[in-house]
Amino acid sequence: MRGAVLHTPGDVRVENRDDPRIEAPTDAIIRVSAACVCGSDLWPYRGIQPVTEPSPMGHEYVGVVEEVGSEVSTLRPGQFVVGSFWASDNTCEVCRAGYQSACLHRVPMGALGAQAEFLRVPLADGTLVATPEVPPAELIPSYLAASDVLGTGWFAATAAEAGPGKTVAVVGDGAVGLLAVLAARQLGAERIIAMSRHADRQKLALEFGATDIVTERGDEGIARIKEMTNGLGAHSVVEAVGTQQSMEQAIRSARPGGSVGFVGVTHDVSLSGMEMFWSLVRLQGGPAPVRRFLPDLMEMIGDRTIDPGRVFDLDLPLDQAAEGYRAMDERRAIKALLRP
Amino acid sequence: MRGAVLHTPGDVRVENRDDPRIEAPTDAIIRVSAACVCGSDLWPYRGIQPVTEPSPMGHEYVGVVEEVGSEVSTLRPGQFVVGSFWASDNTCEVCRAGYQSACLHRVPMGALGAQAEFLRVPLADGTLVATPEVPPAELIPSYLAASDVLGTGWFAATAAEAGPGKTVAVVGDGAVGLLAVLAARQLGAERIIAMSRHADRQKLALEFGATDIVTERGDEGIARIKEMTNGLGAHSVVEAVGTQQSMEQAIRSARPGGSVGFVGVTHDVSLSGMEMFWSLVRLQGGPAPVRRFLPDLMEMIGDRTIDPGRVFDLDLPLDQAAEGYRAMDERRAIKALLRP
Repeated sequence: MRGAVLHTPGDVRVENRDDPRIEAPTDAIIRVSAACVCGSDLWPYRGIQPVTEPSPMGHEYVGVVEEVGSEVSTLRPGQFVVGSFWASDNTCEVCRAGYQSACLHRVPMGALGAQAEFLRVPLADGTLVATPEVPPAELIPSYLAASDVLGTGWFAATAAEAGPGKTVAVVGDGAVGLLAVLAARQLGAERIIAMSRHADRQKLALEFGATDIVTERGDEGIARIKEMTNGLGAHSVVEAVGTQQSMEQAIRSARPGGSVGFVGVTHDVSLSGMEMFWSLVRLQGGPAPVRRFLPDLMEMIGDRTIDPGRVFDLDLPLDQAAEGYRAMDERRAIKALLRP
Repeated sequence: MRGAVLHTPGDVRVENRDDPRIEAPTDAIIRVSAACVCGSDLWPYRGIQPVTEPSPMGHEYVGVVEEVGSEVSTLRPGQFVVGSFWASDNTCEVCRAGYQSACLHRVPMGALGAQAEFLRVPLADGTLVATPEVPPAELIPSYLAASDVLGTGWFAATAAEAGPGKTVAVVGDGAVGLLAVLAARQLGAERIIAMSRHADRQKLALEFGATDIVTERGDEGIARIKEMTNGLGAHSVVEAVGTQQSMEQAIRSARPGGSVGFVGVTHDVSLSGMEMFWSLVRLQGGPAPVRRFLPDLMEMIGDRTIDPGRVFDLDLPLDQAAEGYRAMDERRAIKALLRP
C-alpha cells in the first residue's frame, strides 16, 4: 500500500509500505477514507522533535472496517468508523474515568501511520466508534476532525470549564484553537474571544461562534483580555499552541479562580511555581482523551449540529502529502486533508 | 501595645508597638485572644525570603471586637471574631466567585502584625466572621486554626477534589497537611494517605482521619502511593510544603485525570510543561480563600464536629514568641499558639 513516511525533517515521502495485517485478536484493519496532517506532525517535520529513522506518519483517520480479529465483538467489515490518536481499551479504570489517552493499555496510533491506504487499529472495540450507516461524502471531513482536532479542542474547552455565563479566551488559531471556539459555543459560553491575527482564521472563528477577535498577543494580548473583562481576565482560557509565550499568555489571561485548558504540546515550557501560586488558576491539559467525547461529537456531526470539517482548507490526494506538510508548515493552510 | 517584630532572619522580638487605630471607616480594631506562628513565617525567619526592615509579624488571629469604623455594619464591640490572612470585601466579583484571597481590594494581614495585643482589620464586614456567642476558652485554638491552617488545608483538599470514593494522598505533615487530612475525612474521602516520618505527626494524622501512613518520600514515596493504588496513583493529592521535590512528589503521585491541590508557598519551584502535559493532572493552588469556608468551618468547630486546634502543640505567652519561632524552625513543634 501507499503511505507517508518522514525520512528526515522536511522530507515526507509517500511510498510503498507493507499492508498491515491483524497481529492481535483485538485488532481491526480499516481502509482509510481520509487522514490528515496534524500540527503536532510539524514538530518532527521541523526537526524540533528528533527523527531518528524513517517514520510512518499520521494519527488521525476515518475509514471502513476491512477485517477484524477474532476477539473483536462490536465491529464488522463494512462499517464506517472513527478512532482517536491513542488506541485504548475503554474498559480499564483510567478509561472509565474518562482519560482514555492514558489508558493502561494504550497504543500510540502515530507509530502505525494513518496517512496511508490501510491502517491497523489495536484494541479495536475500545478505540473505534462506528456510525449507524456509512455517511455521505460531504461529512467525511467533519468525522475526520472528530478523530483529533475537534476532540482535542473539546477537551481543552472542557478542561477550561467553558460553560454558561463564562467568558472564554482561546490562545492559538490553528485547527484545535478554532474548534475550541466551536466547543465553547456548544458548551454554552457567553462570550468567546478568539486570539488571532490571520483574516481567514478570524473569519472561521466568528463562524464557529467567537464573539470577539483579539489580534494582540503576549503582554498586549493579556492587557486586551483584561480590558474586556473588567480588569479580571477570562473565566476560561484555552491554550492551543504549546510555547512558553502562549502558555504564559493563557495563564495570565485567566482571572483568579479561572481555568486554563492546555492542549498544545508543551515543548520546552517551564511554569513558575510562584506564578501558578499567585494566579490561583486551575490548570489541566495534555493529550486529549478524544474517545470520551467521540460518541457525542459523532452524533452532532451526523445530525449536522456542528460542521468542524470546515477547518480543512486543503484537500489533497495522499500522494501529495508533502505539499500538505509544506502548506501547514508555511501557514498557507489551516489543516490539510489527505485522501488515499 | 506588645507585638512581635522580625528584625533580621532569626531575630524575632516582642516589643512595644503603637496601638492600632481606626484608619478607614470600614476598619475594626480587635483585641487579639490568640495568634500563632505560621509555616510561611519561617520563610523570612530563615532568610529565604528577604527581610529589608523590622517587620511586624503574624497573620492568623481570633479576638474580640474592640471598636468599629463608622461604615462597619455587621459587627459590634464584644463579638468574638475570626478572620483570615487576607482582608477582603467579600462583595467584589472575585470574592463572590469564592476567591477572597484575590479580592480586588484585598489587604495582606501579615503587614499589620497579628502577633500582638491589638490588630486593625481592614474591610471588617467582609473579613471577619463572628460566633453567635463568645466561645469557651477550650475552643479558642480551633477557631484560631480556622483563621489559616484549617481553611488552607480545606482549600487544598477541595482543589484536589477530595470526596467520596476517592483516595487522597497528603504530602507534608505540617499543620496544613494534617488539617488537609481532616478536611479530606470531612469531605468523605474513602482512603487518606498521610506522608510523614514523624511519630507525633503520624499519630495526629491518624486521629484526624488518615487511613494509611507512608514514611517514604521522593521517588520511593511515589512508588509506595502507586503500589497502594493498583499502580495508578491517588485520585487527589494535597501538596503542603512548597519545594521542588514536594511538588514533583505530589504531581507524580496523582493518577491521570487526578487533581493536585497545592498550598505550600512554591518558592523556586519550576514545573515542566511536558511533565504537566503527560501527567493529565489537574493542578490548582495558591493562597487559600479561607473566607469562603470560614462560616462552615466555624459552625463545625462550634458544634464540636471537628477539633482542628489539636495542631497546636506549643502554647506560649506572646512575650515568648521567639521560642515559638525557634521550636517550629527546629521542628520541635507542629504549631505554636501565642497568647497576648
